[in-house]
Amino acid sequence: MLAVTGGLVADVYSGTWVHANIEIDGDRIVYVGPRDPPPRVTKINARGKVVTPGYIEPHTHPWCVYSPSSLLEAAVPDGTTTLVYDNLFFFLAHGVEGLRRIVEAMHAAPAHIRWVARLAPQSAMPDEAQRFATETVAPLLSWPEVVASGEITGWARVARGDERLAAGIAAAKAARRRVEGHNAGASYDRLAELAAAGISSDHEGINGADALHRLRLGMWTMLRQSSLRPDLATILRDLGDVIATSRRLMLTTDGATPSFYAEHGMIGGALRVATECGVDPMRALQMATIDPATYLGLDEELGGLAPGRRATLLILPEPGEWKPELVLVNGRVVAHEGRLTVRTPEVPWPELDGYPLAPAAAFADPAIYERLDGPVMRYESAVINRAGDPVSELGPGQMRAALVARDGSWVTNGVVEGLFEADGFATTATTSLELLVLGRHPAAMARAATRLADLGGGFAFDRGWSAPLELDGLMAAGGFGRAALVERELGRQLTAHGYPFHDPLYSLLFATGDFLPEVRLTPRGLVEVKSGAVLAPARALVGSRG
Amino acid sequence: MLAVTGGLVADVYSGTWVHANIEIDGDRIVYVGPRDPPPRVTKINARGKVVTPGYIEPHTHPWCVYSPSSLLEAAVPDGTTTLVYDNLFFFLAHGVEGLRRIVEAMHAAPAHIRWVARLAPQSAMPDEAQRFATETVAPLLSWPEVVASGEITGWARVARGDERLAAGIAAAKAARRRVEGHNAGASYDRLAELAAAGISSDHEGINGADALHRLRLGMWTMLRQSSLRPDLATILRDLGDVIATSRRLMLTTDGATPSFYAEHGMIGGALRVATECGVDPMRALQMATIDPATYLGLDEELGGLAPGRRATLLILPEPGEWKPELVLVNGRVVAHEGRLTVRTPEVPWPELDGYPLAPAAAFADPAIYERLDGPVMRYESAVINRAGDPVSELGPGQMRAALVARDGSWVTNGVVEGLFEADGFATTATTSLELLVLGRHPAAMARAATRLADLGGGFAFDRGWSAPLELDGLMAAGGFGRAALVERELGRQLTAHGYPFHDPLYSLLFATGDFLPEVRLTPRGLVEVKSGAVLAPARALVGSRG
Repeated sequence: MLAVTGGLVADVYSGTWVHANIEIDGDRIVYVGPRDPPPRVTKINARGKVVTPGYIEPHTHPWCVYSPSSLLEAAVPDGTTTLVYDNLFFFLAHGVEGLRRIVEAMHAAPAHIRWVARLAPQSAMPDEAQRFATETVAPLLSWPEVVASGEITGWARVARGDERLAAGIAAAKAARRRVEGHNAGASYDRLAELAAAGISSDHEGINGADALHRLRLGMWTMLRQSSLRPDLATILRDLGDVIATSRRLMLTTDGATPSFYAEHGMIGGALRVATECGVDPMRALQMATIDPATYLGLDEELGGLAPGRRATLLILPEPGEWKPELVLVNGRVVAHEGRLTVRTPEVPWPELDGYPLAPAAAFADPAIYERLDGPVMRYESAVINRAGDPVSELGPGQMRAALVARDGSWVTNGVVEGLFEADGFATTATTSLELLVLGRHPAAMARAATRLADLGGGFAFDRGWSAPLELDGLMAAGGFGRAALVERELGRQLTAHGYPFHDPLYSLLFATGDFLPEVRLTPRGLVEVKSGAVLAPARALVGSRG
Repeated sequence: MLAVTGGLVADVYSGTWVHANIEIDGDRIVYVGPRDPPPRVTKINARGKVVTPGYIEPHTHPWCVYSPSSLLEAAVPDGTTTLVYDNLFFFLAHGVEGLRRIVEAMHAAPAHIRWVARLAPQSAMPDEAQRFATETVAPLLSWPEVVASGEITGWARVARGDERLAAGIAAAKAARRRVEGHNAGASYDRLAELAAAGISSDHEGINGADALHRLRLGMWTMLRQSSLRPDLATILRDLGDVIATSRRLMLTTDGATPSFYAEHGMIGGALRVATECGVDPMRALQMATIDPATYLGLDEELGGLAPGRRATLLILPEPGEWKPELVLVNGRVVAHEGRLTVRTPEVPWPELDGYPLAPAAAFADPAIYERLDGPVMRYESAVINRAGDPVSELGPGQMRAALVARDGSWVTNGVVEGLFEADGFATTATTSLELLVLGRHPAAMARAATRLADLGGGFAFDRGWSAPLELDGLMAAGGFGRAALVERELGRQLTAHGYPFHDPLYSLLFATGDFLPEVRLTPRGLVEVKSGAVLAPARALVGSRG
C-alpha cells in the first residue's frame, strides 16, 4: 500500500479540483477522497502540490531517430505516461512476428504503451496489397494493445471507396477499435466523405476552422503541437468558446523531432502552450487525459484518478504548471524532477528478422544516380514541394535525388530544389525504409550511399559527417540523448549546406511520403501525388537481386 | 436520398448550433453542412426549426405493464430513439433462446434498441448460481446488441468480492462492455470499493452530492427522473457549475410507470426539467445524446448528426423546446406531432418457452396464506419499509403477505403495514416473477390468487377489479394505451383501498426486491436485506410439483 496525501487532486471527470488523499494498492488506485490512509502505509506528501492523471499522447511515431524505448526518456519525465505508438515501420521491417515481439517488449515500459495498426503504408508500395492483406492486418486490430487502425495518409483512396481500406475499416469497427484518419488538406466536403467512410479521428487540422469542421463532422479531433506543425496556439485561439463546450478534443505532438521533445517535452509542452493561450487548466488537462482515454476506449483504466484505475499520476507544483516533480506509473515512482529513475525496456532488435540492406557494392555505380527524371521538386516548406519544369542539367540550388531499394534492386530518380546543396548525401531515414540519395555529383552520391551501407544505415555525406542509425536504419541505438545529438548534428550539417527550413529530419523522411504535395520519390517511381500518376517509373538495376 | 434543409442543427460534438443541410442516403447521414442538396432529392423543410439527434435512454426496464414493443409508442414520439433495455425478466422467463428471439424481434423497432445482460437477479433465488452461471451469462455480453452487463442491485456482494459477480464483471470488460451499477444508498467509501471492483456507471444518486461523488470516483453518472424517483431538478440545482465542466453525465427515466411516460414522455421529459432548471439547452442535449452514446460505445453510430451516423433525428420548434414535431429513425419518418406513424415490432410471445403458472387449484388452499411470519414490513414510502415487531394477529393497516411460487411449490409468508387494505389481492407483477398475494383474510387471498391464476397473471382482487397481464404476468398485451389504462386503474383501485404513496406499481414490483430496505419477501424466504439473514425460510407446499 502507498498513499499520496494532502494534494489538490484533479478530478477530470467532474472538472473540479479537490483536496483528497489517494490510496494505492499494487498498480491500482483503490481510494480517492477525504479519509486518512492507514498509519503504516508508505506516504508521499503532496501538501501544497497538485496531483493529476498522467498525460496521454494519443498519436505518435516512435522512430524519429529515437526508438520506442528511448522516446520514453523524454516522454515520461514530462508526465506523458500513456503513448499510442504507430506500428508502421516495425510491421514493414519485421512482419507480424517481429512486431509482436516489440509490442511485448514494451509491456516492461515505465508507461502505458498502446498501438495503432496500419491498414496501408505511407508510401505506395508495389506489393502493398500483399503486405497489408486484410487477413494479415485484421487480426492485429484485436490485439489487446491495439486501440485503433493507424492513420490512413492516402485519404483520397478512402474517399474513393478503396475496397481493401474499406475492409480494414470494417474490421476495426467490428473489433470495437477506432479508425484514425490523416485528412491533411481535405476540403469540408471531402472530410464529410471521409467521416461517412468511417474515419473516427483526425490530427491534421492547422487552424480553428479545420478543427471545428472535423468536430462537426463527428471526428475526434487532435490538436497538434509538433516540430513540423506547431499549430496549437493558432487552433486554440481560433476555437475560443468551443474549447469549453466541445467534446472530443485532444492534444498530440505527432512524432516530433528529438530536439523538439528535448526542449519542450511531450504533452506537457502542449499543455504549456494551452495555458499560455489562456485555456482553463482543468479543461486543458481534460484534453490531455480523460478525453483521449475515452476516445481510445481506455477510460476504465487510464485518464483519471479514481478507484480501479492504474496508479499513474503526476505531482505538480500548481494548477497550470505542467512539469511534474514526481511521476508514478502503476504505483511506482518512475521519474523525479525531469529525470527517468528506472530503466527503459530492452527491445530484442538483433533477434528480429531484419530488413535487408545490401552490401555497399550494390550502391557503388554512379550511373544509378545520374538521371534527372520528371519535374523538379521545388521545396517551398520543409515538406511541401511544387512541380517545376524538368531540367536537362542541374541549376543552382538543385540536386539529383534517387530513392534506391535497400536491396539494390531498383531506383527512382528525380531532381530536388531548395532543400540544400551537397556533392553527395544519403540516408535510410525515409518513410519507405529505402535509401534516399541526394547530391550534385553522381560519383559523390555513390560514395555517400556506399558509406551509408557500410554504416548499416543512418546519415552520410560523401565525405565528412556521418551517423549510424542502427535500428532499421531509422532509429539510433542507445538512449534519447544520443538520438537528440544525432538529429541536432544533422540539422547543423544540413543548415551548413544551405537548408533553409525548420525541420531537416522530416524533410528527409517525407521526401518519399506520397501523401504530401506535390511530387514524391516512391518505390513505384516518381509520383504526382494528387492524381497518383507515375511521372517516371522506378527502374530495375542491372545485377540486382530483386 | 433525402435531405433535411434549412434547420438550425445541433452540433453536439462542438457544442454549437449551426444552420446546415443534412443529406441522408438510406439509413445513414452522408453530409451535414452548407451545401445545397441535389435538386431531385426529397426534401424536408426545417427552416425556422431546430434539428437534433434523437435522444438516448441509457437505462430502462421495458416491462412495467408496457412491453418492449408498446413502450416505443411513448418513447419514439417523445424523441427517445435509442433505448437500452434490461434483459432480466426475459432471460429469467424464457432463457437464452427466448431472449435471443426477443432481441431479434426488436431489430424491427422504429428505434435503436440495445440491451444490458444481467449478472444476477433482483431477488435472490435459490438456483441463482445455476441460472446466472458465468458460462451462460458471459456469452451474452458479446452479443452485438449488448452494451453492458446489467445493473447489480446487490452491490454489497460486489463490495464483498463475490466470485461469480467478479467473473461476470471481468467478462464484460474483456468484451469491452460497460458494467452497470445500482449503488443505491452506498456510502462514499463503499462507492470507492464498487469503483475499484469495476462498476462503470450508476443511476442511483438522488442529490448533487451523490452525483458528484459518483463522477469523482470515475463512474459515468445517470441523473434520474423516474416516477419512483423524480430527482432530476434537485440534482441539477445542486450540481450547478459542474454540469458545464463535467464529462459523463446522462439522463435516465429508469423504467418509469406507464402513466408517467404518458404524461411526461421519456428523455424529452427529463430535458424539459433540465431546461426549467436553467441548464443550457446544448449542454442538456449533450447529456441526452453524445454523452450516453460515448458511454455505451455507440458514438460512431448514434448520438450526433454527422456523416456515417444513423439518420435518426428530430425536428423541434426551437432550442430548449424538446417535444419533436417530426422524428426520423434510420432515415424514415416514424413519428409526427406526438404520434407514432409506423407499427411497433411483433414479439412472438406465444412461441417462447413460457414461465409456468400453475392451475388455479394450486393456489386455492387458504392455509398457504395464513402465517404471520417475521417482523412486520411497515412501509414508510412507496418502496421502503422498516421492520416492526412481529404480530400474532393483524392490527389496523396490516395485511398478510405471501410470495407464492408460480408453480405452487413454495411460499414465503409475512405481514405488511401501511400499503393498503383489502380482503384479498394478488399479482404476478413482482421482481421475482412469482405471485404476490396480500390481504386480511386467507380465504379471500386464496380467491384472489385463484382468480389471478385463471387470468394467466396480472392483478386481481378477490372480487371486483382484475386485469390480465398476458405477457409473462408482467406486461399487458397490445399497445401502450392499454398499459397506461391498466396501471391507472391499478392506482385508482389501490388508492380506494387506502394506498397513500405515489407509485403503486413499484410498491408491488419491489415488495420482492431484496435491494431495498429493510425486509423483503423472496424465494429464499423473508429476508433482512442489509445482513441477508433469512428471518423465516420459504416453506414447501403440500402436493407441490417442485
